[in-house]
Amino acid sequence: MDTRTDTPIRLVGFDGDDTLWRSQDFFDAAQLEFESILAAYVDLGDSRDHLYAVESRNLALFGYGVKGMVLSMIEAAVEITGARIEARDLQRIIGLGKDLLRHPVELLPGIRDAVAQVADDFEVVLITKGDLFHQEAKVRQSGLADLFPRIEIVSEKDEATYARVLGEFALAPAQFVMIGNSLRSDIAPVLHLGGWGVHMPYHTTWIHEATSTLAAADAQRMCSVVDAAGLPDAVRTLAQRASRQRIAG
Amino acid sequence: MDTRTDTPIRLVGFDGDDTLWRSQDFFDAAQLEFESILAAYVDLGDSRDHLYAVESRNLALFGYGVKGMVLSMIEAAVEITGARIEARDLQRIIGLGKDLLRHPVELLPGIRDAVAQVADDFEVVLITKGDLFHQEAKVRQSGLADLFPRIEIVSEKDEATYARVLGEFALAPAQFVMIGNSLRSDIAPVLHLGGWGVHMPYHTTWIHEATSTLAAADAQRMCSVVDAAGLPDAVRTLAQRASRQRIAG
Repeated sequence: MDTRTDTPIRLVGFDGDDTLWRSQDFFDAAQLEFESILAAYVDLGDSRDHLYAVESRNLALFGYGVKGMVLSMIEAAVEITGARIEARDLQRIIGLGKDLLRHPVELLPGIRDAVAQVADDFEVVLITKGDLFHQEAKVRQSGLADLFPRIEIVSEKDEATYARVLGEFALAPAQFVMIGNSLRSDIAPVLHLGGWGVHMPYHTTWIHEATSTLAAADAQRMCSVVDAAGLPDAVRTLAQRASRQRIAG
Repeated sequence: MDTRTDTPIRLVGFDGDDTLWRSQDFFDAAQLEFESILAAYVDLGDSRDHLYAVESRNLALFGYGVKGMVLSMIEAAVEITGARIEARDLQRIIGLGKDLLRHPVELLPGIRDAVAQVADDFEVVLITKGDLFHQEAKVRQSGLADLFPRIEIVSEKDEATYARVLGEFALAPAQFVMIGNSLRSDIAPVLHLGGWGVHMPYHTTWIHEATSTLAAADAQRMCSVVDAAGLPDAVRTLAQRASRQRIAG
């Protein structure tokens, strides 16, 4: 069976951070350095919870990305230390952010081959969330831009965003497979719209991404893989399932 | 003469900040407050030059927008005060940024009518530069989103960006008029590509936008207006000029 002609699937989306390239590792490391700076002032105790609370209340104002994270870290550091923290240490926190922004892009193993194989059979699009400037820099440095004729950098990955992007491609959700590491941002909203998903978990997940639930019926339009090598087969499997569903429907 | 059918112009772009809504005023006010915070520590002297230098070296890493500005302000404040600045005062600088992000959108006088009139004759697009999250919020709050079927939020407004956007519309530069307050970002790159421009200066210009030169030949494809009421006529004038140029050519 020729996958391309029989299946309704027309477009495959790839997430960026922790799907194409490493990201959360570096954020986790920055968080540890942040805590080591605070440790000179306070017993760390619930400092991680405090940073989480500051980030949560600032997300609606700052959006995602390194710059907002650094501003939240500074704010949390001032609060946690009762404003005793020294200016030099707050400058070090800005340095953590600059290191993150300058960090070389490290592709996940086998991802270039996986994207290329999927792109042989389907139109592909990169749909990545976060800071426009930093995401553009990562796409450029990744060396993958040539594989993606279209790149969508979005501020939030919810149903409204996926519906808008699919509208620009003039496609229905049932014609779309999304690949990513976050159930909350990459998989759940696409399944809920009626689309398909390949979940490729990353070994660490940002706490703000960690909560999600999938309806049992939706979960049938999803499969999981352990690494990039499994992606082309997973997409083919879903494409065939979509084909059978159409015939049965 | 029916402008629509005779002219090669097919698309009119509008800039956002200081073209559709007020922006630089609020940044200027934040800069004054920044200086008043520093005044408790140092004789201000060249503090404005110092902030400018820090912003300049950080632009390539942070891009445009409020969050990067605040990080540069904190860094400059630590340097200018020899790290004597108190954490509470650095927190106040973050507060300046939050106030900017929360500031209600104030449309420039007559702009809604002007966009609507231009949209009667031409396809229109909003092309705005800066932080994705903040620009989306401003577009939403502006109440102008219904007038713009397409909104492009870009990280830089240079020839490459305009060429990419025009490519997505499958148009040549000669079919495009850009309207904006910045010669450097809105007018010069479009004219240089071979397009058209309407310059509507704002009473204050960000220092990083202030330098630009126009070739004399390019300047013939530009006109200037003093306020939004002049925009529809200016676009019609350029459309007719484009029409005559095509006939002559």
